Amino acid sequence: MKSLIEPKLLKGFRDFLPSSETSRKSLIGRLETVFRQAGFVPIDTPAIEYAEILLGKSGGETEKQVYTFMDQGERQVALRFDLTVPFARFLAQHRHEISLPFRRYHIAKVWRGEKPHAGRFREFMQCDFDCVGSDSLSADLEILVLMYRSMKTLGIDDFKIHISHRGIFNALLSKLLCENHSVEILRAVDKIKKQGSDIVSAELSTYLKPEISKKILEFISPLPDFHSTLKKCSDAVGNDNPCVIRMEQLGSCFKELGIQGYFVFDTSITRGLDYYTGVVFETFLSKLPDIGSVCSGGRYDNLVSL
Amino acid sequence: MKSLIEPKLLKGFRDFLPSSETSRKSLIGRLETVFRQAGFVPIDTPAIEYAEILLGKSGGETEKQVYTFMDQGERQVALRFDLTVPFARFLAQHRHEISLPFRRYHIAKVWRGEKPHAGRFREFMQCDFDCVGSDSLSADLEILVLMYRSMKTLGIDDFKIHISHRGIFNALLSKLLCENHSVEILRAVDKIKKQGSDIVSAELSTYLKPEISKKILEFISPLPDFHSTLKKCSDAVGNDNPCVIRMEQLGSCFKELGIQGYFVFDTSITRGLDYYTGVVFETFLSKLPDIGSVCSGGRYDNLVSL
Repeated sequence: MKSLIEPKLLKGFRDFLPSSETSRKSLIGRLETVFRQAGFVPIDTPAIEYAEILLGKSGGETEKQVYTFMDQGERQVALRFDLTVPFARFLAQHRHEISLPFRRYHIAKVWRGEKPHAGRFREFMQCDFDCVGSDSLSADLEILVLMYRSMKTLGIDDFKIHISHRGIFNALLSKLLCENHSVEILRAVDKIKKQGSDIVSAELSTYLKPEISKKILEFISPLPDFHSTLKKCSDAVGNDNPCVIRMEQLGSCFKELGIQGYFVFDTSITRGLDYYTGVVFETFLSKLPDIGSVCSGGRYDNLVSL
Repeated sequence: MKSLIEPKLLKGFRDFLPSSETSRKSLIGRLETVFRQAGFVPIDTPAIEYAEILLGKSGGETEKQVYTFMDQGERQVALRFDLTVPFARFLAQHRHEISLPFRRYHIAKVWRGEKPHAGRFREFMQCDFDCVGSDSLSADLEILVLMYRSMKTLGIDDFKIHISHRGIFNALLSKLLCENHSVEILRAVDKIKKQGSDIVSAELSTYLKPEISKKILEFISPLPDFHSTLKKCSDAVGNDNPCVIRMEQLGSCFKELGIQGYFVFDTSITRGLDYYTGVVFETFLSKLPDIGSVCSGGRYDNLVSL
């Protein structure tokens, strides 16, 4: 034996031995079956793209985590850090080859050069599914039902999908005349489950008047049921607000489908990212609350014009 | 619509639309079934590894094509350019967690920053399968039968698997006293199907005596059947040479399995890479000879010591 290859792996990266890789493949296979049954089709995009495209809309924090480098042709390229930006690029590129509404799923690796810690890796799989080209109630509903069915197909039953509507939150900020701080407010509110209301309140108070900050905190504090939360929203922004109406319709649909027990109307869900415009959601495992959301997303209507 | 993401893709990289991605997934699924039925299990390794590990044994040509860069922690890292080197590292790392013989398959993307041209991309899928920890005839045979079955499961019938034995070729070079040029000779001979014998002969003559060069060319020129090729080999290096005996046994096995029509004993097959030590093979499609080998490999006994 001449030269033994050194058994050295980068921190935050993993090998999958046959036992875990077999489980992972079986799990992915089950999800793919659910997606296909719901009319979602697979796509794939390259792991490497022009850095300017992948980093176009992201802020400083993301940018630091992205693996960027110069390729053999002196182009500034990057490894994808999610599957949403590549999908937006894909849609812009193939708009004349697809028909709308377009339902795709994409299960693939992404890379983030962040500090690895328990359960966080630098290379990991994302599983995305989107419906593009419809602003209807049924498009929102089919994504939410698919989330429910995905959890069920994985054999998970102890979960709650927390949903809210970014449009309602934006309307409230507009009424409170603090839209100019919406980016910071969204980012602060997004941390309330991890950091608690005191820290969020302190952060909000650095740029908002105390009474405004208090109203926001009141708005995002949980109420016991869908109906009372809906009432709070309609009190805050008016019962003719189309976003309030959309939430009311979704609540009725959940009931009709008999899956209302899995959905929580939770006004603290706003999602930190700027691009969401409609219904937003995060999924929590009742027995493992500390690991945070395991399936999240929302409607974003303006990332690509079609 | 505020900012439209520019539909720009790096040269040599591809999107897969649902129609092609669905076909690709179905094709991979069929291969995986064949592998699993033959007792091969899946593994996965990271796309990024330490550059020194991935580049350890490769020559200058490969090195130029590898995407290497500095990560956030100032480590020199690289994207894998094949699945063999990562597998050698995997074996070194997990030698105490696996039992031998170990049969694995791995279907995953690799990246090479080479000039893209018809059918050659900078990002593409490799499909590897190996049996590790056995130097037996049956290990060679099960890989060759799996190649045969893989082609069949893809619905391909017009193919020939050309096989030879690197040990026979090495023994010939040893007899001709030109082992010191073995790396160049292997590389020259590997190009004969693409460039023809005149160019290879001219290249060999730059460092070999004309009669030696002639003998090598005679050895690698094709004969019509398995038996006569075997005779040529045993004439060249002796009928007690264990590599000649291994080829003879394989020929008998093909016959017994009734698959001898798919295998060609072709002494021009040597594989350009240095690490092969035993049986080597390349698969050609009878109706598409110009695209070259579609399924290649060989036995390499010394890449990792177990």
